[in-house]
Amino acid sequence: MNDLTIAELSTKVGKTATVRGWLHKRRDLGGMVFTVLRDRSGLVQAIIKDEAEQAKLAGLQNGTVLKISGSIVEEARAVGGVEIHEPTLEIISPVTDVMPIEIDKPLDHKSENFDVLFENRVVGLRNLHERAIFRVQASLGRGFRDYFEKQDFVEIHTPKLLAGATEGGAEVFETNYFGDKATLAQSPQFYKQMMVGVFERVFEMAPVYRAEPSVTTRHMSEYISLDAEVGFINFDDLLSMVGGLLIHMTEYAWKHNEAELQLLGAVKPVLPKAIPRLKMSEVHELYQKATGEKAVGEKDLFPAEERWICEYAARELGSEAVFVTDWPAAEMKFYHLADDEHPEIAVRADLIFRGVEIVTTSMREHRYDKLVAQLKKIAHGDPESDGFKYFVSAFKFGMPPHGGFGMGLERVTQELIGLSNVKEASLFPRDTKRLAP
Amino acid sequence: MNDLTIAELSTKVGKTATVRGWLHKRRDLGGMVFTVLRDRSGLVQAIIKDEAEQAKLAGLQNGTVLKISGSIVEEARAVGGVEIHEPTLEIISPVTDVMPIEIDKPLDHKSENFDVLFENRVVGLRNLHERAIFRVQASLGRGFRDYFEKQDFVEIHTPKLLAGATEGGAEVFETNYFGDKATLAQSPQFYKQMMVGVFERVFEMAPVYRAEPSVTTRHMSEYISLDAEVGFINFDDLLSMVGGLLIHMTEYAWKHNEAELQLLGAVKPVLPKAIPRLKMSEVHELYQKATGEKAVGEKDLFPAEERWICEYAARELGSEAVFVTDWPAAEMKFYHLADDEHPEIAVRADLIFRGVEIVTTSMREHRYDKLVAQLKKIAHGDPESDGFKYFVSAFKFGMPPHGGFGMGLERVTQELIGLSNVKEASLFPRDTKRLAP
Repeated sequence: MNDLTIAELSTKVGKTATVRGWLHKRRDLGGMVFTVLRDRSGLVQAIIKDEAEQAKLAGLQNGTVLKISGSIVEEARAVGGVEIHEPTLEIISPVTDVMPIEIDKPLDHKSENFDVLFENRVVGLRNLHERAIFRVQASLGRGFRDYFEKQDFVEIHTPKLLAGATEGGAEVFETNYFGDKATLAQSPQFYKQMMVGVFERVFEMAPVYRAEPSVTTRHMSEYISLDAEVGFINFDDLLSMVGGLLIHMTEYAWKHNEAELQLLGAVKPVLPKAIPRLKMSEVHELYQKATGEKAVGEKDLFPAEERWICEYAARELGSEAVFVTDWPAAEMKFYHLADDEHPEIAVRADLIFRGVEIVTTSMREHRYDKLVAQLKKIAHGDPESDGFKYFVSAFKFGMPPHGGFGMGLERVTQELIGLSNVKEASLFPRDTKRLAP
Repeated sequence: MNDLTIAELSTKVGKTATVRGWLHKRRDLGGMVFTVLRDRSGLVQAIIKDEAEQAKLAGLQNGTVLKISGSIVEEARAVGGVEIHEPTLEIISPVTDVMPIEIDKPLDHKSENFDVLFENRVVGLRNLHERAIFRVQASLGRGFRDYFEKQDFVEIHTPKLLAGATEGGAEVFETNYFGDKATLAQSPQFYKQMMVGVFERVFEMAPVYRAEPSVTTRHMSEYISLDAEVGFINFDDLLSMVGGLLIHMTEYAWKHNEAELQLLGAVKPVLPKAIPRLKMSEVHELYQKATGEKAVGEKDLFPAEERWICEYAARELGSEAVFVTDWPAAEMKFYHLADDEHPEIAVRADLIFRGVEIVTTSMREHRYDKLVAQLKKIAHGDPESDGFKYFVSAFKFGMPPHGGFGMGLERVTQELIGLSNVKEASLFPRDTKRLAP
């Protein structure tokens, strides 16, 4: 643990120093061996002239784990500004096979290459570009928690093995649970709402499971859901909170991982302090007027319309994200709140960012009688059943007005970096055809 | 969102203020109604003399969500030092049913009461004592992350849906995965090791699933596993890191949640900067000598021995935690490292805290050839099989010496607070008989 990292070598110019890491690439040229060593902090070149030292690498391939000691020399053209001269090598773990995937240049993320990319993930993630994605992702998660911890939210851990399906439908994984049937949680929805009755403000960051047979660029069967739920809030403040979160996560990533974001060619999004809000009917009108495609009266946004409204918002409203509000109540979940004055409208918004929905947020129905009525009417559920009785009991014994949201960590990583498929933002993606590595 | 919390009322003495929360309890006495309101920050009493205001509460029960405005008066005998006089009430969510569980005094955690405790968890968690447990738990998780983030570890998210069982054995949940068989991860073991090849230092905080039919005070079928793995480390530094973690998490919780820990009667553990280390053979000898029970030569610690050695360490070594090292290699996992000079010994330690093992940590075998040999010999595994080929490929292409550990968040919460059963430290515990709420 006491070695320097490669990034710290610049403090040792003119001295000798030792670093450990992986042989990232090598070139033999005019009797000299140019080796590049990789550690968690970066790359450094060591120039080996001594034949005995060169011989230590005979037959060894990239990936070999090495300890290199030598003189640290300033070299403006090198990454990090230094090189190692007259190195002494110690082989820690020899590698004799050639890697199945190249890791010294950006990997090709064309969709036809995904099988190779994901099959060789274990080694492929050692590529600086690949690993940069997940350093950014770690910062986004940290930024998410930081935002809510500062606002007195409590982190909760809710079960993923459930007796019934949260959102209903057939798209749920099942398992034998000591003779009973259990399902894997599709979301922490019921639990986070129940916990508003305990902590008022809660968040969770945990896997969720979707047995959707969809093959799209947006879906995976397992992903990390960032969830929060807050009591004693109104819709206006809820949207400000969600918009503030996207801004905070963005700032957090750019503050802590600007080098990685630059390496990936990510462009920092333009986000005003108040993310603009448009009603769905307004979006439909604007879209129909601009494109001639019929949209007015539709109950959802088309994918093309999501892309278009983000271009519009970027151009006309100075924001790469936009809230679309006033969704039809006819399409809402039973736990959503319908507007008391306009019961045909659900108090819900989607946050569309760079052409894709990244958050669905809504106020929830907190009144016991109305919730039970909606449960029966919309979900055809029985409030006395095992699947719903615990959830409705929270309301029977007093719940305040509240709202919340869910956001996929991989999807927000994808959109902030500008990746074409959400799977590129998962260390080990899971879809209908892939369960390994 | 703009109301004060109850804890902030002490800044408003002599003024009027508004708070919102839940009716926690009430007493009618001599024409006055004494109500206690609860919010996320604490309790405050409001004294209602006005009959019209009293009438608003007619027929309403604890749990009712209220908005109370009134004069804030200093009252040294009250929790928080203030009371609300001449209050005006607004009913936000009326509750007319009597709660199924009392929440205004500590709940009885005798094991025969667990069914009632867990069946009524949704409302029971509103009890100040219950919710205090989970505020402490949130701090422990935050302390865990804080410790590793400061040491340049990267947070990873590894899949919980796997093609094969990580640790082997029958104690694994299975699910139909689009026609294939998937298992739920028992630990992130293989993934965190593989990620040492990418980031060197990684941690994860995520659910794991154990289909063990065990009914004990230590086991659940779903829990939150705190995992870390670090490259280029030796065993001595690994133990220092794990010991430092326990100390950091403890300090973190006491710094941020001292009020909750006091409410729960938790006693801050005595932990020296360097947690003492004893070899298993030493523990056996000490135990046998002190108790007369045969222990010398045994390959594991008895539960009674774990309790005894902690009492011994507290008394003789000034530490409520102790590392037990030098485990027999005959019992080790295939990915553990056996001591090169003493191949009968595994380079492993258990951290025993307050009588219970809370961490197992070990150095891993990082040499490809030796790992493959151990895989075949110990786990009877095929390195070419789908279950192992990805894992061993990380080693084939270069892994440094590394080690790591896993720790159950609920178990460390239990032991720090002094709860008798790990389920008391889970919001919604899962065991062989309980899958709800």
